[in-house]
Amino acid sequence: MSIVLGPHQYGKAETRLVRIVRDSPRHEITDLNVSSALRGPWEEAYLDGDQRRVLPTDTQKNSAYVWAKKVAPDPIEVYGLALAHHFVDDVEPVEGARVEIERYDWTRVEVDGRPHDHTFVRTGQEVRTAAITLEADATHVVQGFKDLVVLKSTGSHFKDFLVDEYTTLQPTDDRIMATSLTAQWRLTDAAADTDWNGVYAAVKALMLAEFATLDSFALQQTLWHMGRAALEAFPPIAEIRLVAPNKHHFLVDFSRFDEPNENEVFHADDRPYGLIQASAVREGAAPAGEAWHGYTGLV
Amino acid sequence: MSIVLGPHQYGKAETRLVRIVRDSPRHEITDLNVSSALRGPWEEAYLDGDQRRVLPTDTQKNSAYVWAKKVAPDPIEVYGLALAHHFVDDVEPVEGARVEIERYDWTRVEVDGRPHDHTFVRTGQEVRTAAITLEADATHVVQGFKDLVVLKSTGSHFKDFLVDEYTTLQPTDDRIMATSLTAQWRLTDAAADTDWNGVYAAVKALMLAEFATLDSFALQQTLWHMGRAALEAFPPIAEIRLVAPNKHHFLVDFSRFDEPNENEVFHADDRPYGLIQASAVREGAAPAGEAWHGYTGLV
Amino acid sequence: MSIVLGPHQYGKAETRLVRIVRDSPRHEITDLNVSSALRGPWEEAYLDGDQRRVLPTDTQKNSAYVWAKKVAPDPIEVYGLALAHHFVDDVEPVEGARVEIERYDWTRVEVDGRPHDHTFVRTGQEVRTAAITLEADATHVVQGFKDLVVLKSTGSHFKDFLVDEYTTLQPTDDRIMATSLTAQWRLTDAAADTDWNGVYAAVKALMLAEFATLDSFALQQTLWHMGRAALEAFPPIAEIRLVAPNKHHFLVDFSRFDEPNENEVFHADDRPYGLIQASAVREGAAPAGEAWHGYTGLV
Amino acid sequence: MSIVLGPHQYGKAETRLVRIVRDSPRHEITDLNVSSALRGPWEEAYLDGDQRRVLPTDTQKNSAYVWAKKVAPDPIEVYGLALAHHFVDDVEPVEGARVEIERYDWTRVEVDGRPHDHTFVRTGQEVRTAAITLEADATHVVQGFKDLVVLKSTGSHFKDFLVDEYTTLQPTDDRIMATSLTAQWRLTDAAADTDWNGVYAAVKALMLAEFATLDSFALQQTLWHMGRAALEAFPPIAEIRLVAPNKHHFLVDFSRFDEPNENEVFHADDRPYGLIQASAVREGAAPAGEAWHGYTGLV
Repeated sequence: MSIVLGPHQYGKAETRLVRIVRDSPRHEITDLNVSSALRGPWEEAYLDGDQRRVLPTDTQKNSAYVWAKKVAPDPIEVYGLALAHHFVDDVEPVEGARVEIERYDWTRVEVDGRPHDHTFVRTGQEVRTAAITLEADATHVVQGFKDLVVLKSTGSHFKDFLVDEYTTLQPTDDRIMATSLTAQWRLTDAAADTDWNGVYAAVKALMLAEFATLDSFALQQTLWHMGRAALEAFPPIAEIRLVAPNKHHFLVDFSRFDEPNENEVFHADDRPYGLIQASAVREGAAPAGEAWHGYTGLV
Repeated sequence: MSIVLGPHQYGKAETRLVRIVRDSPRHEITDLNVSSALRGPWEEAYLDGDQRRVLPTDTQKNSAYVWAKKVAPDPIEVYGLALAHHFVDDVEPVEGARVEIERYDWTRVEVDGRPHDHTFVRTGQEVRTAAITLEADATHVVQGFKDLVVLKSTGSHFKDFLVDEYTTLQPTDDRIMATSLTAQWRLTDAAADTDWNGVYAAVKALMLAEFATLDSFALQQTLWHMGRAALEAFPPIAEIRLVAPNKHHFLVDFSRFDEPNENEVFHADDRPYGLIQASAVREGAAPAGEAWHGYTGLV
Repeated sequence: MSIVLGPHQYGKAETRLVRIVRDSPRHEITDLNVSSALRGPWEEAYLDGDQRRVLPTDTQKNSAYVWAKKVAPDPIEVYGLALAHHFVDDVEPVEGARVEIERYDWTRVEVDGRPHDHTFVRTGQEVRTAAITLEADATHVVQGFKDLVVLKSTGSHFKDFLVDEYTTLQPTDDRIMATSLTAQWRLTDAAADTDWNGVYAAVKALMLAEFATLDSFALQQTLWHMGRAALEAFPPIAEIRLVAPNKHHFLVDFSRFDEPNENEVFHADDRPYGLIQASAVREGAAPAGEAWHGYTGLV
Repeated sequence: MSIVLGPHQYGKAETRLVRIVRDSPRHEITDLNVSSALRGPWEEAYLDGDQRRVLPTDTQKNSAYVWAKKVAPDPIEVYGLALAHHFVDDVEPVEGARVEIERYDWTRVEVDGRPHDHTFVRTGQEVRTAAITLEADATHVVQGFKDLVVLKSTGSHFKDFLVDEYTTLQPTDDRIMATSLTAQWRLTDAAADTDWNGVYAAVKALMLAEFATLDSFALQQTLWHMGRAALEAFPPIAEIRLVAPNKHHFLVDFSRFDEPNENEVFHADDRPYGLIQASAVREGAAPAGEAWHGYTGLV
């Protein structure tokens, strides 16, 4: 049996790029972590070290910087699409490209009750993400976020589960439910006039509302209902994937102390954690191709 | 020359404690990382392993939990003072105590335009901190924050510096200035009716305004003016200490590309970084004692 | 178009488990991070919150602990296979299981020139990993490591690459090549008498030798040759996957100083980094099934 | 009461520097993280932004690189002393300097049973550190390490401790004791011919032996005996400071399962942890001055 080169790709990861728009005294800031990977005929580079058709990762980094000038990177999806198209359209041997972006949020500092023109404070727990994939005959956009830490202090049950000889967990009708949510949704419509920021904000708000209001009997159930709500509200979303560590908050045992503890004092544990993954899919939507084939683990 | 036991202390670090106030359907959440260290006659424990006068760190953890029930831990300073007094007043051999607290911020999720009763999202870049120190005849409260990431996209110069044969830096009249600020201020008045949350919010706002509005010729200068402003506005502050890594944003060199880069595209570098430390002191204020003697590095 | 549940799984991640074998005064230590995920008919749990067929993640954790007693977890592959079989064979609704393990290395402390019986120091940069997947009709074992940081100070070129208008990189015939290597190889033979530790040590040594001795013209080339060498030497390996961030070491420009710098002083940069992925595949080997479907990102 | 500038300093932190010695085909590697801080008349820089006497932190970085060429940085103490002297002796306004160094360990890759000439693998859990402080009339060297993770699986008791109403911990005569040790010792003799590497290796070995062989009744006791042993063996050590988080390993409760657990299966917990600090001091030794005044928290 012969040994052959299997799946492979290469690119530049984690170019930390800040873009200031300063056309007026009121500056705008976009703070990004950009990664790119190219697909093409790189076999000689792997087998023989022949670099003649290989665009260096250093050049990919330079291109990420220049395109942040050519295309103001807000929304990030427009910038990502432009950068990916540059690689595929302008660099001859490149056949496909993936651009992954993290965006860190900033808000204006308030001075005398008014937002300041050029001073910002970094805010936000979650990181907004986008992954753009250009294939020979398809364009994919996956929008989402990671590290959105949410908690509800009631409205969560866990009971009536399967019990075996190693089960010691007690059922409960009132527990804290908390997670650090990652959500990614694939949009089938990448039209030039797509309101990327509007869709992002609306999907996030919708999922948070579902998390808050569903009387939960399992984190699995909560995730599914969050995902389904997004697909029901937004037809361009073909599918959504959610990853949620169950950040356990254990009620501290006060039975030997001089105080009751009626779901009031909890220990927030680090490890281990339940890890729940769910997805909701629209039947008949356009196929995903390489849309979910992550490069750096950003999404 | 004989060898003797030098400075020593022991305690429980990083008890991760979440307190829910649920007296009504509208819950409140306080999310803390609590560390305590005790001072007293522990010499036999070190020299001979004799534990008879040593309150186990596990008991300190339990006490942190119980006091979070007895005293709702908002503001954190009131809780910290109560916990420290418990150790010193109630546990016989203890002579002094230090309690260090980190507080993580949460805000209510919006559902249908209204803040939800029991669902929260973690927010905020910075971590609020407090360090309470009880000595035999003094009580110290140090209030502050860490990891407040701020940036101004103009209004910062760096020029006319000392030049030697290893200097390659070019002077500039317009650069990004950014830092991840740690600020700690010592309050000499720990009266029962102190508005801890109000002072905290006001000092933070004041320092941000100073950061925004001072035309800066050095990060050193900016820090000093931020600190001085806090002391001028709040007489109970005896001193303030600031630590600020200069988070360098380098203008990307576009000279070989087909685009100009007029302070628009920057590389946010990780390391190395300038590290600037400053303090402002009110002459004649009550002495600091052990107030700044950090236990876990929280402050 | 209707909306349906897509791919999903759940389990317990990162159970930190230390197993001491103490049958004699000379103890043995195994230090693990264990994650498990189960596959089966969980649809009602997602759609309706019905837990009746769901084995809680807490029970999975307990099982990981108990099996560390039943089966001394060295080699980790034997333990992982036993734990996965427990879930599939003993818990009725479970149809498939994945167990992912990280192992941290310890060596004995030397006292008076001899290895101590029960005192250990944690060593090793790399983390050994294993991923066991049980499907209805297949068993997969993926063995490997992550975070193996290697560097060669010469014997690496990078030149004759594709140049476009955004290329500023200079070619070189002598650079530092360094990476933090992740390597994972799939073994098609999981016989009871497999020498898992022997195979692991030999594959790692072989890849390090190839890294050292190949005159490299690209990190891509080095990875491929490392992978191919492993497959040539070990017929039970069906395929190997390598992920290698190019940890850039930039020669510091001394042109303005009073010293030469002939490949002697480098700046080790953090970000961005090239990210190179390669794989070598044995044609005709048994299919991978779900072997590469990672649960926690451990592999 | 007027407000004045209090303690302050500035410098460059975390210059990541790799030095290759390549005088022969058998290369040597030194991998460092270097931080420097200067002391002098910087008051105008803080108060008015006047930089005329301020050596930029960028120049400090350049100097760290150049001195790594002038002085091969092994042992790190010789390099740190030379760099600190450069700042104080060669740059006019500088009155004092502190240089803090972390060293990461590498060993040669074995190829065909022989150590390779120019290929290395990063090893070692602990990070070796040094802090050099030059004052007007004193030179201080603090040598040490951090992150040395050690564990003993027996030979550790914890019992007969103080019990109050919040104590739930059970006494034990056989527990795992583990820590991630930081140790720093101040050497009063910085003679040109000091065998820095020899002292480092010997002190580390001595402390590990003490950790292993002392029948321990408290981590406090173990630390003190480790420190005292170092001072007894090495007269040039004036004092030693130790910081040790008690990395708790909890015996997993198997009482409801079909297996015993006789100190065999443990849960390695993350937080909270006991935090123990100890020091041993040689009476009458030269005073410490600013030797312990850490800049970046490296030591």
